[in-house]
Amino acid sequence: MQYSDRLLGRHHPLVHRLRSLRRDARRRRAEGVLVAEGVHLAREALRSEAIIECVVASPRLEQTPEGRALRAEIAGRGIDLRDSLQDARSPQPILAVVRVGTWSLDDALAWRGDATPPLIVVADRVQDPGNLGGLLRTADAAGATGFVCCGESADLHHPRAVRATMGSVFRVPAAAVDRTDAQAALEKRGIRRIAAEPHRGTVYHQCDLTGAIALLLGGEGRGLDPAWLERADERARIPMCPGVESLSVGAAAGVLLFEAARQRQLWSG
Amino acid sequence: MQYSDRLLGRHHPLVHRLRSLRRDARRRRAEGVLVAEGVHLAREALRSEAIIECVVASPRLEQTPEGRALRAEIAGRGIDLRDSLQDARSPQPILAVVRVGTWSLDDALAWRGDATPPLIVVADRVQDPGNLGGLLRTADAAGATGFVCCGESADLHHPRAVRATMGSVFRVPAAAVDRTDAQAALEKRGIRRIAAEPHRGTVYHQCDLTGAIALLLGGEGRGLDPAWLERADERARIPMCPGVESLSVGAAAGVLLFEAARQRQLWSG
Repeated sequence: MQYSDRLLGRHHPLVHRLRSLRRDARRRRAEGVLVAEGVHLAREALRSEAIIECVVASPRLEQTPEGRALRAEIAGRGIDLRDSLQDARSPQPILAVVRVGTWSLDDALAWRGDATPPLIVVADRVQDPGNLGGLLRTADAAGATGFVCCGESADLHHPRAVRATMGSVFRVPAAAVDRTDAQAALEKRGIRRIAAEPHRGTVYHQCDLTGAIALLLGGEGRGLDPAWLERADERARIPMCPGVESLSVGAAAGVLLFEAARQRQLWSG
Repeated sequence: MQYSDRLLGRHHPLVHRLRSLRRDARRRRAEGVLVAEGVHLAREALRSEAIIECVVASPRLEQTPEGRALRAEIAGRGIDLRDSLQDARSPQPILAVVRVGTWSLDDALAWRGDATPPLIVVADRVQDPGNLGGLLRTADAAGATGFVCCGESADLHHPRAVRATMGSVFRVPAAAVDRTDAQAALEKRGIRRIAAEPHRGTVYHQCDLTGAIALLLGGEGRGLDPAWLERADERARIPMCPGVESLSVGAAAGVLLFEAARQRQLWSG
């Protein structure tokens, strides 16, 4: 898109577009972009292979050394950089419109080289954007090779989700698909499905988490859809102190993913 | 406190008090109470040893079987139960004013029987109430015997913190104290201090997490205060995928606490 003036007021079309992109998941999908807010995320976008379409900076960006360095880098790369009088209703001093790779389910389930069997996270019914983004961040840290959202999960490109990923949204191939498509693809590729369950199943550190696996994590509230539980190859349980009903999905993801990383000796150094 | 009428309008003193208790940490501390919001938390309060001073229910409580059962239980126990015309600005159908035990640092660090050496979580500079409450929930699930907040951490009785604990706030002895007092008490009692660090130290599953230990967790942003790091007995590192800067404090807590539980064989059954 082309915009006329470089100094943006609140009624400038780009400011309207930013507001609409932050609110409207359909518009984000239609345009294939997300809005990265803040210095950390904008820097992560720059470091990644994503294409940065344009950046809007407020005068506050100049107030920190990191902000000034970031501004210089953006200008140096020839990225379309606008100054905003307003903050586009964002508390952040910088907003970047980032064209995100359109990852397919195949991308999310692919092998990364012969020696690295897929370690997939499937988020089912994770309805809070912050929780969903946090899952992707943890998955990235543990070395997950792909991420799949399904079953009424939030939009991974929701501003709160993007923020919670801390930049992992630019690194880990992630696809949002129907539950049945995800199940069929995992089955076809021979990726073992390990369902996280609070009260039944094998104690998680006695599960074999090497090889090609998908960890199935259900959102808080309703948990995994029964369709996942019925067809799981194994159920992994995190034993808990009596009286405690459940673990947060974020904490459970940390426990299971880093146990998988430990068994796979991913980051032993 | 005594209130006159049982059907509360928005200007009733109890409604004012509830609003003020939800906003004002000093008032909560002065009165020694917190406000538990929602069916789940009210039920957890009932199950615990905490004293429920009074309960305000909105007509919406009658709309679910759980709500009706809870209401009947509260009435049956002779707890002061009021009906509210308004929802006291809460989206929840029930608010309970709960007198929480005043746990001292000694309580938080105590042994639970001879066979259970303390497993303590120290939260330092964890400024987001939701994150702090989530830590307590994870600590409870893993079998932590005590919880200590210090260094500008949020108030554990903040409504968002209470909600995030999912009821653990009524179970785990927790104290908010000065950093120096916490350090001195841990040292005096011979409780080993294990600092969670993203980039240095021993790989966490090679650390000895049995015996009397305190896991020191820093908030996101600034992490642990250097004063903790200098005097830690050991630094535990969770190895991460290259390119990832840090793990969320909630995920890190899950990984470390459940590794401690595993080593201690707390919940092997």
